[in-house]
Amino acid sequence: MKERLGFIGLGIMGQPMCLNLLKAGFKVIVYNRTASKMDNTIKAGAIPAESPKAVAKESDVIITMVTDSPDVMEVVLGENGVIQGIREDSVLIDMSTISPKVTQEIAAELQNKNAHMLDAPVSGGDTGAINGTLAIMVGGNKKIFQRCLPILNIIGKTVTYVGNQGTGQIVKLCNQILVSVTNMAVCEAILFAQKAGVDPEVMIRATSQGAGGSWQLSNLGPKMIKQDFSPGFSVELQLKDLRLALESAGKMEQPLPALTLVNELFLLNKDHREEKEGTQALIKSIARLSK
Amino acid sequence: MKERLGFIGLGIMGQPMCLNLLKAGFKVIVYNRTASKMDNTIKAGAIPAESPKAVAKESDVIITMVTDSPDVMEVVLGENGVIQGIREDSVLIDMSTISPKVTQEIAAELQNKNAHMLDAPVSGGDTGAINGTLAIMVGGNKKIFQRCLPILNIIGKTVTYVGNQGTGQIVKLCNQILVSVTNMAVCEAILFAQKAGVDPEVMIRATSQGAGGSWQLSNLGPKMIKQDFSPGFSVELQLKDLRLALESAGKMEQPLPALTLVNELFLLNKDHREEKEGTQALIKSIARLSK
Repeated sequence: MKERLGFIGLGIMGQPMCLNLLKAGFKVIVYNRTASKMDNTIKAGAIPAESPKAVAKESDVIITMVTDSPDVMEVVLGENGVIQGIREDSVLIDMSTISPKVTQEIAAELQNKNAHMLDAPVSGGDTGAINGTLAIMVGGNKKIFQRCLPILNIIGKTVTYVGNQGTGQIVKLCNQILVSVTNMAVCEAILFAQKAGVDPEVMIRATSQGAGGSWQLSNLGPKMIKQDFSPGFSVELQLKDLRLALESAGKMEQPLPALTLVNELFLLNKDHREEKEGTQALIKSIARLSK
Repeated sequence: MKERLGFIGLGIMGQPMCLNLLKAGFKVIVYNRTASKMDNTIKAGAIPAESPKAVAKESDVIITMVTDSPDVMEVVLGENGVIQGIREDSVLIDMSTISPKVTQEIAAELQNKNAHMLDAPVSGGDTGAINGTLAIMVGGNKKIFQRCLPILNIIGKTVTYVGNQGTGQIVKLCNQILVSVTNMAVCEAILFAQKAGVDPEVMIRATSQGAGGSWQLSNLGPKMIKQDFSPGFSVELQLKDLRLALESAGKMEQPLPALTLVNELFLLNKDHREEKEGTQALIKSIARLSK
């Protein structure tokens, strides 16, 4: 018999993920702070609940997809939080990107109720959420992972078990380090080409299949050239993730000089009210340095 | 009828490139400062010459593959240089990575002799040179490029015409910006994972197919983890190329903050006598920052 699911957080990512679970035949109880955001999933067969606690009471597996560490703490540990209703042997899968340390704290609280937790942040943006092609990095107990795999396989294409509680978040932050610093490489190469009078599209064509090639070059490079700053992933959310990465790195005393630099430049974007733009707007911050 | 070729500079890159031209049936006259380095190509049918001037006298197309700007200036403009022997309508293809500005100066001198020049630096390392799979970025007159294409197609797999004289070098420097800053992204992600107790191989597996993916991650990442610092491309040569990129950027007043940072860290490698190691040794310089 299929697990009964709860889904909390029906934003730009959560809503399409939840719709894919409904389409796959799961029974899903939903909750969202702004109630109107539940409408689409209710139309698709979801049952609305009045609180995260109410969701937890009726669910074997509860998925949370909210923005930041305080949001997860509120919906799980808060007054009408998941922990008030969760039953023994149920599982919380937190798919938000939050602090690895907060993840471990929440997992410990759930363990006191004999409930389980997986941290399973995703990569792939709203397109990946809609198409069910997200990359999912999962930390936690391996048996619990295997139990939840049929659910995760609906939501994502590459589901990787990466280790103990919190390591899903660590790997997600590694992903954001890779994405952000590689983005920086693309920005500097394009600006160098443009300043030297070389067509940057030709530059991308000549380099993208070799040792300089990257997803960022092939996907964000052309957008930078066209000055298309519409968001695939916004500066605002990237800044949140870089804060998490730099906080963790600080605690571990691991210097990340390039990521620190990129973070400063994204803050410069924010200063120019570009925080809703896509991360390719990074190029505008570097261009400003020579103005 | 096939062009008669000259080849100057039979080092780790030049020698296999010249051998591929001989294998393809070209008549090649060779010159190398250290004469013994000509032996292999002579065995394969090349004719040795006593100077770059002597090479030029007998060649329709002369290829140079030496290390840096002063080396190209010496073999082309020096006492017994190419320019002393070059005939009207002959072509110099400089495949070294050198200053875009020096390239333009040399091209102007050759034009005074009614001879032509292409700047055609390569990417792909000694493996690419051996297998004839180099990426070649070509600047210069387009008709001269088309005339030389049958030769370049023997040496490389991706031959891209990028624009006027000097733009081949510009695009090569863009490639080195991409390679170096993306390398930095990989180093920081691996160090972050290791410090947090996550298996970095699992991290690479979970991220390399997504938006964080790059050639550097898939190829240099595993070497960093195994602490295999054998050179695909050495720190020493990368430092030379970054110097060229930062010099050009300085003249154009284009800030490259991330590349500047990477350059500093490669200098730290050199300080630790790691300049003959591969560029993946960059990770050791970042690791040192927290010692």
